[in-house]
Amino acid sequence: MPATQSKTIAIVGATGVVGRTIETVLEERGFAVDNYVPVATGRRGQKETTAFGKTWTLTAPDDVDFSGIDVAFFSAGASVSEMLVPKAVDRGCRVVDNTTAFRMDRNVPLVVPEINATRVGGDAMLVACPNCTAIVLVMSLAPLLAAVPVERVVMTSFQSVSGAGREALCELDEQIEADAGDKAPQVEVLPRQIAFNCVPVIGDALESGYTKEEEKIVEESQKILDEPELKIVPTAVRVPTRVGHAIAVNVELKEPLAPGRAIELWKSAPGVTYSDEVPTPLDAAGSDMVIAGRVRRDPTRPNAITYWVVGDNLRKGAATNSVQIAELFL
Amino acid sequence: MPATQSKTIAIVGATGVVGRTIETVLEERGFAVDNYVPVATGRRGQKETTAFGKTWTLTAPDDVDFSGIDVAFFSAGASVSEMLVPKAVDRGCRVVDNTTAFRMDRNVPLVVPEINATRVGGDAMLVACPNCTAIVLVMSLAPLLAAVPVERVVMTSFQSVSGAGREALCELDEQIEADAGDKAPQVEVLPRQIAFNCVPVIGDALESGYTKEEEKIVEESQKILDEPELKIVPTAVRVPTRVGHAIAVNVELKEPLAPGRAIELWKSAPGVTYSDEVPTPLDAAGSDMVIAGRVRRDPTRPNAITYWVVGDNLRKGAATNSVQIAELFL
Repeated sequence: MPATQSKTIAIVGATGVVGRTIETVLEERGFAVDNYVPVATGRRGQKETTAFGKTWTLTAPDDVDFSGIDVAFFSAGASVSEMLVPKAVDRGCRVVDNTTAFRMDRNVPLVVPEINATRVGGDAMLVACPNCTAIVLVMSLAPLLAAVPVERVVMTSFQSVSGAGREALCELDEQIEADAGDKAPQVEVLPRQIAFNCVPVIGDALESGYTKEEEKIVEESQKILDEPELKIVPTAVRVPTRVGHAIAVNVELKEPLAPGRAIELWKSAPGVTYSDEVPTPLDAAGSDMVIAGRVRRDPTRPNAITYWVVGDNLRKGAATNSVQIAELFL
Repeated sequence: MPATQSKTIAIVGATGVVGRTIETVLEERGFAVDNYVPVATGRRGQKETTAFGKTWTLTAPDDVDFSGIDVAFFSAGASVSEMLVPKAVDRGCRVVDNTTAFRMDRNVPLVVPEINATRVGGDAMLVACPNCTAIVLVMSLAPLLAAVPVERVVMTSFQSVSGAGREALCELDEQIEADAGDKAPQVEVLPRQIAFNCVPVIGDALESGYTKEEEKIVEESQKILDEPELKIVPTAVRVPTRVGHAIAVNVELKEPLAPGRAIELWKSAPGVTYSDEVPTPLDAAGSDMVIAGRVRRDPTRPNAITYWVVGDNLRKGAATNSVQIAELFL
């Protein structure tokens, strides 16, 4: 990756799992961070953080002066973004927002650089980074769609607990510990016990019966792929994994596509690959690649295939994708 | 449940997770066990077992005399069943076989009593109990099918580790313990690490790309439902839960079926129900009910619905279904 000119960057939500991963990815990709403004509520009593070889004092969200900041990454929830992103943009700070606040705003590009980097125009000040599951899904669908139109997608996700943040990860560990000690696991962060369980509820339930997470997966995928009519039926499920989302995908195409051809398409597309060894969430964790596997003909429909795909929800699903967007800015 | 006349029963695989659950279910259902022959290889040095209020000596598979046994439950793998079931039947012992050995044999009924109890004729000596995931699936599909013909099913399972037996359960616990102690988890029983992971490989891979487990789910469901042409596209995934299988099901029907009508059908069918609280594997564990939830319209296809269903793989998925078959025998 090319080193960029030295910059001042901010991460709003610097102490969260995604914020910390953005720091790591910036370092890995040789992003020249001259000055760093880590922004966090500091509610765990934390006052400073170490990154880019130095220790930096945390700034409270209300105290940030965005005027000297080149790029700010937002990953502290939609309400924080709704409040601060307009202020940041007003001050000339470019923003990569990794919350739901602006993703479906028709004036804001929703970008997965391998798919729609061209949406980031030279004067773009605000770009949204999509939902982690939507990113894994579209990274696997885009190479197929480039070759053959898609009729319909039925997908079921296996979403790791880190997608719900640091406190959810602690809750998983505490529930496992309680279980080992024959104590009743406490349920506070996630809606149901997640240790030794699978919970098909992510986000609020909508009147349609789908959840907010499922709606995001559908609408964001349609926007990223620029296929507003693409038919997607989602079931989003939280599972007791820590990092790495997996999706079981059934795709009905409008023309034939042999599994072997799908493999070629994945292997030749950037950011995605195919593994003959069945890829699992643990294989995805720590990698920037989205990995498809187990592609097979679906004998029940002409032109349908079924496959499995995994990706690191913190990296390509959030931090890496956000940093790639920042690279497009600069 | 009616108490039956006192009987001599055998369980081949008595010390396994399903064998132990069969003992429990027999006790719960007031099955009058006069004499019990627990059959096990005793490879963990175990010589006796306690059940039905007494302690019984384990018999090795090769030493069983089936002539005095009224009903034998087999749950010790297909090769043991292939060897011993014919001998048992020859001696006039009725057999409930919970392995793959005879399930697809056209002369052997494959029975889920709520669906096809009539297949157990008065002179039936051998009845097969289906795969645990197939049972949960067909229990949820049968009430719908009775009302509206089904065009196609796309399903993704979340299968608990107990479905792979006691050693797999130990492996899950050991891997979690190793992880807590920052040691590398050992992988011996299951094909990949299961703690904090999801593994879409259950059983050998077939040339089609599907696994043996996926093939079982399709073929057994078709046989039980007496719908040999029913289209089912399966993905079977092992997840780090202990007990309770879940399935995300998308059903295309040949006529309209409102979600509310599906709920009525489930609530009025025996052995299955519907919960407005989202049912999870932990909710199913310990129950004999198969519980559907989250039914919703699928807007991408006329007459399609999507739902989630859970069942205890050891009970209704194996032991309870086996004992119900034995009750039909007697």
